[in-house]
Amino acid sequence: MSKQKPSLPKGTRDFGPEQMAKRNFILDAIKEVFQQFGFQPLETPSMENLSVLTGKYGDEGDQLLFKILNSGDFLAKTSEKDFQDGAQRLLPKIAEKGLRYDLTVPFARYVVMNQHDITFPFRRYQIQPVWRADRPQKGRYREFYQCDADVVGTDSLICEAEIVLMIEQVFQKLNIQDYTIKINHRKILQGIAESIGAQGKDDSPRDGSPRESDLLVALDKLDKIGLDQVLQELRDRGFTEEALKKLLPVFQLEGDESSRLHHARETLASSEVGKQGISALQQVFSLVHDLGSSGEKLAFDITLARGLSYYTGTIFEVKVNNASMTSSVSGGGRYDNLTGVFGMPGVSGVGISFGVDRLYDVMEDLDLFAKESLTTTQVLLVNFDAESEKHALGLLSQLRGAGLSAEIYPEAAKLKKQFAYADKKGIPYIVVVGAEEIRTQQYGLKDLKTGTQEALPLEAIIQRVKQ
Amino acid sequence: MSKQKPSLPKGTRDFGPEQMAKRNFILDAIKEVFQQFGFQPLETPSMENLSVLTGKYGDEGDQLLFKILNSGDFLAKTSEKDFQDGAQRLLPKIAEKGLRYDLTVPFARYVVMNQHDITFPFRRYQIQPVWRADRPQKGRYREFYQCDADVVGTDSLICEAEIVLMIEQVFQKLNIQDYTIKINHRKILQGIAESIGAQGKDDSPRDGSPRESDLLVALDKLDKIGLDQVLQELRDRGFTEEALKKLLPVFQLEGDESSRLHHARETLASSEVGKQGISALQQVFSLVHDLGSSGEKLAFDITLARGLSYYTGTIFEVKVNNASMTSSVSGGGRYDNLTGVFGMPGVSGVGISFGVDRLYDVMEDLDLFAKESLTTTQVLLVNFDAESEKHALGLLSQLRGAGLSAEIYPEAAKLKKQFAYADKKGIPYIVVVGAEEIRTQQYGLKDLKTGTQEALPLEAIIQRVKQ
Repeated sequence: MSKQKPSLPKGTRDFGPEQMAKRNFILDAIKEVFQQFGFQPLETPSMENLSVLTGKYGDEGDQLLFKILNSGDFLAKTSEKDFQDGAQRLLPKIAEKGLRYDLTVPFARYVVMNQHDITFPFRRYQIQPVWRADRPQKGRYREFYQCDADVVGTDSLICEAEIVLMIEQVFQKLNIQDYTIKINHRKILQGIAESIGAQGKDDSPRDGSPRESDLLVALDKLDKIGLDQVLQELRDRGFTEEALKKLLPVFQLEGDESSRLHHARETLASSEVGKQGISALQQVFSLVHDLGSSGEKLAFDITLARGLSYYTGTIFEVKVNNASMTSSVSGGGRYDNLTGVFGMPGVSGVGISFGVDRLYDVMEDLDLFAKESLTTTQVLLVNFDAESEKHALGLLSQLRGAGLSAEIYPEAAKLKKQFAYADKKGIPYIVVVGAEEIRTQQYGLKDLKTGTQEALPLEAIIQRVKQ
Repeated sequence: MSKQKPSLPKGTRDFGPEQMAKRNFILDAIKEVFQQFGFQPLETPSMENLSVLTGKYGDEGDQLLFKILNSGDFLAKTSEKDFQDGAQRLLPKIAEKGLRYDLTVPFARYVVMNQHDITFPFRRYQIQPVWRADRPQKGRYREFYQCDADVVGTDSLICEAEIVLMIEQVFQKLNIQDYTIKINHRKILQGIAESIGAQGKDDSPRDGSPRESDLLVALDKLDKIGLDQVLQELRDRGFTEEALKKLLPVFQLEGDESSRLHHARETLASSEVGKQGISALQQVFSLVHDLGSSGEKLAFDITLARGLSYYTGTIFEVKVNNASMTSSVSGGGRYDNLTGVFGMPGVSGVGISFGVDRLYDVMEDLDLFAKESLTTTQVLLVNFDAESEKHALGLLSQLRGAGLSAEIYPEAAKLKKQFAYADKKGIPYIVVVGAEEIRTQQYGLKDLKTGTQEALPLEAIIQRVKQ
């Protein structure tokens, strides 16, 4: 074994004690809210059969799947011809498993495999890492956590309203105040597409006429490229000038949520499906109020598209307004047919996903992490010599027995070193146990924040530290 | 996309709500104890460079590593000759990363990469899955969690004693009562090996004379094959009859821990290193007492070997005595040179690892999981009709605002269906909200365990459920 400088695979990270404490603060807030809303935890394996993963995320997604080499002699099933035919031909013979790409497809697989044991409507949450062979860049990693909550087996709009409430409560716990929950409905987009002449069916061969998906893809870029470029892209994709003229009022809705919804309904008057979408959103707004929220964070955004994903109903996206991060920190929506691809049609569901890494960056940016959030020892017992050590070990047990997190410096090192240890580890209190202290049973409690020291009996020390 | 029956990769599992609740009960107990002893959390990436993993777990371990195919055109760096040369030649050109095999090597890598930022002694805990391409069988999985705690940067035996205390406290929290913490010291085994003529160095070429590792490997099988077969294996490995005669008293130590240690010291009188091992264990026993434990679960087992792992000092293993599971549920020990392989010599450390899956099986076996351990909703609001739903949504917010986990059945389904939902999900209370209840502001609280129903105002319902 040669000595080597070890390194991390690109796009991956270690999380040391400080980052872990901050990440756990975020994850605990999310978990608590999920549980309060009746969601139950689920975990699925990191590896899935490639037959489960492939074809669910589009061609690009398939490329980004991490594939796991079959164990043992992975060439056993291959021939020289496979090799000559290239990577894509060889792949299925040497790799049968891949790493989870998101939490949605594994959830759909779980629902299908356990459909006879699950009580529907099924509310599950899942907090686990996912892997994508994306090009690593700032804020984009190859391994990152997703935090998803979904309700499947009902199309009740109460679930949509509860998602709004959950977002509000998570952000309240995280003390993020200036944010917007954008909301739209896929049927509204479908109505717009219809009314501006996107007649091509997404699942039939292209015949030159623009499709609903052309509208979605272009709208999705609005934030990045602006209205003019979006219009140009729509032109390039085959929409007529007349169609674009019809589209313009859509970008010019004004007034509060309810009047904008009202105007949108007028604009879409000719589209039955569009009006259904508007009605659904109006109901969601009303249910949010019934649930006791002012709904002031909720913003109807008729241009919100959420890409080409499987959504069919309400869609959500959350942005923090006063952070340097401009991308969304949370998103979700309703889908009609999550499990259809695994042979179980007709299961409607709605879900929300929080991006831990992005929330982490936002909270750092806004300086929202509490200084005391570090998971650390509360009391360090100083180690003087063998005799005081013996006595200190007894005190240590009593401190821990009182529910405190405590440790003794394991060696009788120089005091300076022991104090520096406490300082660097963020330990707030040091207890000094020397011969005199043992005689009087009054131990020196040093508060490292204030620098003060007091001689106190153990009981009083426990009280002080617990405050 | 063809419709397909989805399946799980062999050796992997889903954890549904009930299993998650039980697993979290175990993990939370372990985490709480780790934190109380001053350990801080660390997480490392699931993927490591193969250069970090390979050669650390022996040849067998290398075979069991899951390798990840390079992303993109994984054949780009290969030639036809590589393919003809076979899997082992091709491998390094198509796979540069592997999945974590344990938590120890990634920890060592972390320590080396962050050595200038870490405050030593460094106490970290790590609870993450690991992956091994083992043949799946009952109780052995290809993905499973490890829970490790290690202190590195000190050789103080206080750390060993604290590990004993941590084991005791974890088992107390889990309510596992009948268990044994076997303890031994690698120097004692080294002393035995010396005194019975194992002179071959483990790292020099075999010259026919038996080695210390021959003794370790044979001893490791004692539980499975019994003393006679172990002696036979030692004979086969080159130990003389005279040597085996010297070995026998080692298996016949009697009396309490202290007298067995005393006898062992006499048996090993000729071995300096052996006596060092005995002294170390005597000190650990004494420190365990200083820490306030009776040490009654601690058993000196001179035959405990813990395989060919990197241990150099004290070794531990925990078995539950009254469970059908006979393998150990926890184990660990001290190592002298964990980080040496990455170019950072002289870092001594000691660690303990808990096996969650095995603890889970033991607790199921002994029926130790609390019936109420399920993470679930506390109150379900029944959904009658649109009017009562609106009122119920307001109540729902108040229940949640009071800190309860609550939900409303999202549709006005048949009452039977809603009650069955509560029953299957293990929800203990149902609140009925009809026209009469809305008028009187007295809602029907049904206790599903007792079957009783009472009309109560919301405040009283909150109090009752909280009890």
